[in-house]
Formats: sequence, C-alpha cells, structure tokens
Amino acid sequence: MYLSKRDIKYEIQNIQTFIYNTTIDTGFKKVIVGLSGGIDSAVIAALCTQALGTENVYGVMMPYKKSHPDSLNHATILAQQLKIHHETIDISLMADAYFTEPPTEPLRMGNLLARLRMCVLYDLSAKYSALVVGTSNKSEIYTGYCTQYGDSACAFEPIAHLYKTEVREMAKILNIPTQIIEKPPSADLWEGQTDEGEIGISYPLLDKILYLLLDEHRTQDYITQQGVSQTDIDLVCKKIKNSHFKRQMPKTIEKVWENHY
Amino acid sequence: MYLSKRDIKYEIQNIQTFIYNTTIDTGFKKVIVGLSGGIDSAVIAALCTQALGTENVYGVMMPYKKSHPDSLNHATILAQQLKIHHETIDISLMADAYFTEPPTEPLRMGNLLARLRMCVLYDLSAKYSALVVGTSNKSEIYTGYCTQYGDSACAFEPIAHLYKTEVREMAKILNIPTQIIEKPPSADLWEGQTDEGEIGISYPLLDKILYLLLDEHRTQDYITQQGVSQTDIDLVCKKIKNSHFKRQMPKTIEKVWENHY
Repeated sequence: MYLSKRDIKYEIQNIQTFIYNTTIDTGFKKVIVGLSGGIDSAVIAALCTQALGTENVYGVMMPYKKSHPDSLNHATILAQQLKIHHETIDISLMADAYFTEPPTEPLRMGNLLARLRMCVLYDLSAKYSALVVGTSNKSEIYTGYCTQYGDSACAFEPIAHLYKTEVREMAKILNIPTQIIEKPPSADLWEGQTDEGEIGISYPLLDKILYLLLDEHRTQDYITQQGVSQTDIDLVCKKIKNSHFKRQMPKTIEKVWENHY
Repeated sequence: MYLSKRDIKYEIQNIQTFIYNTTIDTGFKKVIVGLSGGIDSAVIAALCTQALGTENVYGVMMPYKKSHPDSLNHATILAQQLKIHHETIDISLMADAYFTEPPTEPLRMGNLLARLRMCVLYDLSAKYSALVVGTSNKSEIYTGYCTQYGDSACAFEPIAHLYKTEVREMAKILNIPTQIIEKPPSADLWEGQTDEGEIGISYPLLDKILYLLLDEHRTQDYITQQGVSQTDIDLVCKKIKNSHFKRQMPKTIEKVWENHY
C-alpha cells in the first residue's frame, strides 16, 4: 500500500545535510533530542549522529512513573548503540505536583506530560547550548497526532516531510534496534495506547490516503476507486481539517509572522 | 516620540470583532487568559470580556513563590473589576520538582516558569473548553522579549499588531486599574527585572525605531536623522534578527506548514 516514490537512501543524505546546515547556520554545534524509545526519535538521533558526530548529540529520556518500562529501555539501548550523551529526567514529581489526583480524561494527563517534556528539553537545550530537534513525521503532522507546544515544539523538523511508513523504511537502513522497529507505535501517554488504535486507521492505509490527497492532489472519487472506503477517507479528511491550527502560528489581525525582518 | 497614527478607539472595536469571530469560528464560546498582573494581559482580559461577556472569560493567576506579591494582587484587582471567573494555581511545586536548587542563570528559571504556565493554561483550556488567548504585543514579538513555547504559546494573538506604547494608550481608554498602567513593565521572572532594563532601551524609543523600520520601511540613515543614535538602532536591529526564529514554525526540508489543507 506504500505509494511514495522517494529514494530513502538519498533522503538520508539529504536530511543529514539539512541537520548539519541548520545547526551551524543557527550558531550551534550541538543538538538535543527527546528519546521516547520509539522509531521517530531513534531515526532522528541516528541521523543527527551521522550529521554532527556522537559528541554533538544529546539524548534525553523523560519517563513518567506510569510509562511503559520498554520506553526507557529501548531509548537506552539506542543511545548506547549510537554512543551519544544521554541522561534520564523523571517527570513524575513535576506532573504529580500539578495533578494531585489523575484527571478524568487521560488525554489531559497525556498532553501535560508531553508539554512537561518540552519544558525539560528546552531547559537542557539552554544548559548544553544544544538546539532542540523535532521528531514529527508527516503522518502525525497532518492528523494532528501530537501535542501542540509539547512534542511538536522544536527548532527544526528533519523528518516532517516523511510519512510514518517511510520513517520505518529509513529505520531499517539506519540499523535501528529491531525491538524499536517492530513494536506497535505508541505515544505511551497512557497504558495500552497505540497510535493506530487512537487514530483509528493503520499507518499504511493512512499514508496511502494522505499521499494521494496531499502529494498527488487526487479527488476523493479517485481514492475510492483505488479501493479505499469513503469512511476511511472521511476520517482522514476530518483529521486534516481539525488539526489545521497545529500547523500555523497563532492567528493575528495583521501580518506579524514570517516576514523578511 | 509615539509615531503610530492608529485610532485606538477604533482599534478596540476591531479587536473585539476579531476575538469574537476567532472564538466562534474555532468552535469555542469561551477563552482563557493568564493574568500576570501586567498591562498586556489586563488589556486582553478587558477586550475579551467586552467581546464575549464576563461569563465566557477565565483568568488564571500562576504565581511562583518568588513572584512579586503585586503581580497576584494586581491580577486579582483586575479580575474582580471585570467580574470574570478567576483562579490561582501556584506553580512553585512544579518548578521546584525540576530545579531542586536554583540554576546559575536566572534566565533558565524564568523560561521554565513561563513554560510551566503554558502547561497549566493549556490544561485548563481543555478542562473548561476555553481557547487560550495570547497577550503578546509587537514590541515584544520583534525584540523576542518572550519565551518560545511559554508566554508566546496561544491560539490567537489579538494585540500582536500593537506596539507597547499603543497598548498603554488602550489600557487608559479601557479603564485598566492605574496601579497596573503605572508600574514599570516586568515579566517578573526574577527580582528587580524590568522589560526596559532587560531590553536595554525605553519602550517609547524602541517603538519609534520599530515603527520607522517595520511600518514606514525607513533606512537607518533616515532614522538617525530623526535623532536616534546608531547604537540604539543597532541594538534593535540585532534583536529583530536574533528573534526571527520565534516568529516562525520550525524549519523543515519541504513545505508542510500553512497550506490549504
């Protein structure tokens, strides 16, 4: 079902150049990345290591007391394989200082944890003079499967143009540990959470629909003719629409963002 | 030294329409704003109250144990005057759970506090189904005098196009309490901090330079002919340049932000 024609090996080179140039142009030598134990941050850490050298990459693990132990274990295995600086900051006390009892909606705790991790990562960014690298992919960005001002907060996004299925291909080429590649993707914000369960569609099918809509600019009629159900198309279109605000700067009355100054 | 020709009374109407339309178009009825005790958040709270009604505005005070007591006092006076819902969430435990001893650089603590306040505000936004309103003005935005993913994080920015000197004019018309209008502007992130001390220039002079550069597109030669020193122009130009990253979405390889999807 994977439709992109992208040459993943070429793309690895392309991204490394982008990481190197962005870091240097911004006046930095080092980068810092939150290591979740998942595939996206593993791929980013590997690409940064190749682009900047092991000594210039910091990995930070930020477990909460209810995080799955695999998250920290897999992140540690990755950091050791890459031979990068890494440290663990437990965010349980910070989170529990705010939620003295768990909120009725698990999403509120999940979003808080993602934002607290941003707070920690940005503080360590200042401490180490290391630029915060983002780990968002195009599948997440267009479904809004991320926390605004949380995991989506960063200085630059090296894999924002790649679908999850492409990131997985890249992970194999980069020799990311198989435990990380093979486990079901999860934000691990609450027990039993998986991306695909929460988004309501498998990544291969999601990426097929996104690719046909966003890259090939196909009509919905064309997509149903490719064997995709209207229900799945509707689901994806709704997610694209509802996450629009996450892909923009805050609304203003006059133009104040992104000008030539 | 104030150069803008803007009709502040007209602008009040204009901003209220923007607040109302943005809130409703986004599917909300209510807004939430962090009340710092300062003039910007006071003006925003007043404008929102006129646009949406007292029952649809939440004010949140988020003191840290070392915040100046005036910050909380002035915010409370304002909320009571406007008759809006308001509550106080002390962020000391959250901050101290991270910094078990104060960092050597006060800026790191200041940025952490600003970001923790964002975490609290966004959680309450979900709790109350209220949209987060930003309080940034153009003087702050173009000098970068804000914490990225902290106080600059919001759904919309109703006064982003107004200079600080214009916000002060507006505050008088809106009957903001005089204690708030008359005290020296401060982010209150550490003791004795004032905006003008930290930026290194007074707001009237800053706004004059920004206005001539950004709105009238004047050359630096022209601005020095208006009696502004080259040192002050250089200071402002450097701040504009160094804060560019705060006015943009994260850098990407291909275009993924702000398209028509």
